[in-house]
Amino acid sequence: MPRVIHPIEVESYRILRSRIDLSHLPPLSRAVAERVIHAAADLSFGDSLVLDEDALAKGREALLSGAPIYCDARMAAAGITSRKPIVPLDDPRAKTPEPGLTRSATAMRLATKEAPAGAIWVIGNAPTALFELLEHPPTDPALIVGLPVGFVGAAESKAALAATDLPFVTNRGERGGSSVAVAAVNALLYYEA
Amino acid sequence: MPRVIHPIEVESYRILRSRIDLSHLPPLSRAVAERVIHAAADLSFGDSLVLDEDALAKGREALLSGAPIYCDARMAAAGITSRKPIVPLDDPRAKTPEPGLTRSATAMRLATKEAPAGAIWVIGNAPTALFELLEHPPTDPALIVGLPVGFVGAAESKAALAATDLPFVTNRGERGGSSVAVAAVNALLYYEA
Repeated sequence: MPRVIHPIEVESYRILRSRIDLSHLPPLSRAVAERVIHAAADLSFGDSLVLDEDALAKGREALLSGAPIYCDARMAAAGITSRKPIVPLDDPRAKTPEPGLTRSATAMRLATKEAPAGAIWVIGNAPTALFELLEHPPTDPALIVGLPVGFVGAAESKAALAATDLPFVTNRGERGGSSVAVAAVNALLYYEA
Repeated sequence: MPRVIHPIEVESYRILRSRIDLSHLPPLSRAVAERVIHAAADLSFGDSLVLDEDALAKGREALLSGAPIYCDARMAAAGITSRKPIVPLDDPRAKTPEPGLTRSATAMRLATKEAPAGAIWVIGNAPTALFELLEHPPTDPALIVGLPVGFVGAAESKAALAATDLPFVTNRGERGGSSVAVAAVNALLYYEA
C-alpha cells in the first residue's frame, strides 16, 4: 500500500523545490537530499551532503528486506517509526565505558562485534560512535548513515567516513543530528520510483 | 548529585563561546541559547531565539518539581532522557484525526483537555500541534517550548506563540526541530547556578 502523503508535506516539498533545484541528482540521492532539507529547514545540506547512488540503492534494498538498524541514540531510533531500530547504548553492558572510550563508542564497539552482516548503521549524534565504527567496522554493512552534529569531532568523523570505501551517506561540516539522520533513512524507506 | 560533564561537552562549549558571545543574556536564557546552539551546531539560534528569563525560571521550577512533560513527537520525548514525557500522539484515540485537523493537532487537543495545570509542553516537530495549543491552550501551562521546524507553518506558529502572554520559549523563522526543543528543556533541567 503506498504511503499517504499529507498535503502539508506536499506543500513543503513544493516550497523546497522553489528554493533549491536538486533535479540534477539521481533519484535516491535527490530523495535523501530533499527529505533532509525538508526535515531541517536548512538548504545548506544541498551543498554539504555526500551522496552515492549505489550505496543508497544497497541501503534501500537492505531496509526493504528488513535488515536490522543500529542507532547511536534513542532519538534517532524514535524517528524511524516504521521499523524497530536497535540502540546499543541501551545495552546494560554499555553502562560502564571502556577505558578511553565514550559510552557511545563503547556501545558501538559491542554492537559492531555482534551485529550480523548487512545491517544499517545510523549515527546522528555522537562523533565518537562514528569514529569507533570506522576503527572497528561491522561485517559488510549495507549502509552507514553518518550524520553526527557538533563542534567537536563531527566534521572530522564525517570526513574520515567519506574517505573510506564503506557504503555511506554523510555530509561535510558541523551540521547534522538525529532528525537529519532519520530523514535520510526515511527517504530511502519511503522512496517511490 | 551534580551531573558529570564530559570533556567533549566542555570543549564544545569552549568552541561555542569563542564563536558567539552570549554573556549579555541572563543565566537561564544563556543556558538555553548555548545548549540549543551546541545541539544544532547552528549559531543562527543566537539571533533567532526569543527568550524570557521569568518564563524559563517558571519552567525550570516546574521541571524540577516533576511537572508532567507533553511532547508532540516521540523523538523529542526520547531526548529528554532524565524524565518520562507523555506523547499524546501515541494515544489510540489520536489515531483518527478530527475533521480538518492533523493527527498531531488531534492528539494535542485531547491532551490539552485532560492535562493538569502546570505542565510543560514541548513542540519540536509539528506546527499544527503548536497552532492547536494556541487555539485551545492548556490550563495554566508552566512553559511552552515551541520550536517546530519546517517550510510550512513553523515560522507562523512560532510568531503566533510569541504574540501571546503564555510562558514560552521559541524562535523566529523556519529552523527548529526535536533536537533543538530537547536542548531547551535539558538546558533548564541541567542548569547549575
